[in-house]
Amino acid sequence: MVIRDEDSQPSGARKPRVSAKGEQTRARLLAAARALLAGDGEVPFTTRNVAALGGVTHGMCHYHFQTRTDLIVAVVEAIRPEWITPLEEAVAQPGSFAERAERVVGLLVQPEAGDLDRLHSALHWFALNDERVRESLAAEYLRWRECFVALFQVLADERGGGFDPRALGEAAAAGTDGLAAIQSLDANIDPAPVVRALILGLAAGATAP
Amino acid sequence: MVIRDEDSQPSGARKPRVSAKGEQTRARLLAAARALLAGDGEVPFTTRNVAALGGVTHGMCHYHFQTRTDLIVAVVEAIRPEWITPLEEAVAQPGSFAERAERVVGLLVQPEAGDLDRLHSALHWFALNDERVRESLAAEYLRWRECFVALFQVLADERGGGFDPRALGEAAAAGTDGLAAIQSLDANIDPAPVVRALILGLAAGATAP
Repeated sequence: MVIRDEDSQPSGARKPRVSAKGEQTRARLLAAARALLAGDGEVPFTTRNVAALGGVTHGMCHYHFQTRTDLIVAVVEAIRPEWITPLEEAVAQPGSFAERAERVVGLLVQPEAGDLDRLHSALHWFALNDERVRESLAAEYLRWRECFVALFQVLADERGGGFDPRALGEAAAAGTDGLAAIQSLDANIDPAPVVRALILGLAAGATAP
Repeated sequence: MVIRDEDSQPSGARKPRVSAKGEQTRARLLAAARALLAGDGEVPFTTRNVAALGGVTHGMCHYHFQTRTDLIVAVVEAIRPEWITPLEEAVAQPGSFAERAERVVGLLVQPEAGDLDRLHSALHWFALNDERVRESLAAEYLRWRECFVALFQVLADERGGGFDPRALGEAAAAGTDGLAAIQSLDANIDPAPVVRALILGLAAGATAP
């Protein structure tokens, strides 16, 4: 049973046993929370409004998520497979720095899917006003940045050092974050030359004689 | 009189004549709007709540700002002297690329003053939900990015070309934006090596043989 539990929840802490119906209810609440967070703000983000949008009683919502902070933190963790996991895989798969960098560039020039830009904006705002959300979101951004640090570590290993892969990785991560924020305001921006400058331009600068 | 007017409003379009008392009321409303935008969201951002916080009647608020969008757009323009003007000056003042880059790095490694990070987060969120706010904020970010493009243009002129100053400028601008967002979530980040990588590292990559 322990092995079964761990198999079905490879990336998170173990949760209390919940029935299949309970899992469905939890998923509906998470989807409703995500929709409300990515919405236009006309409906305030409260457990009551999330329950209503998910078609669940407020009492049942409270059973799964006691506070709105619990709901926001759960959304932060739920979007990881769309947001961070593809980047982790692009960096971790075998290859030279040049090969991994091309995979990363290919991933980053694609527009953010669906509601992710609106979600990120709302989550950032809540993070500045709620310490638990801040901690949770900061941990995700750290994971995101570590992908870029790992990428530039590959370059440092190839070249035998000579530069600080952490500074370059943090710079590239900050750049792709900022680019996504600017693109959400201005659809005319072509991300490709900017992403290439951030990944390949920083690499060229680091390894210049 | 015309000269006097232009002297007192060097950077903006000429506004209709408003009495000194009217200017004071407008300034109080702007300060209240800024405080409410940078607040914790417990008080919804409405013209009524801005008027109450500014100690002004709702009718008088409506005289100066007809909608909450008018208030938000006015705040976007009002923070330009704290946010963008210092960067414009650091780039525009005479000097080689290396001298201007050092001025820009010196400016960017300082923490954002006071409530600017909270304001930016709130303004970004409103921009995704209000087309006029989006246009206004996108125009400010364009000004911000053009500073970096101008900086890398100085480098291109020094070197006689050979790279695209726009891509590098956009990359550096996106990086410093993203860095500010990440710093607002994680106070442990040292901005100095990241800013140096973004300005000097990108320059080194561009001019590498």
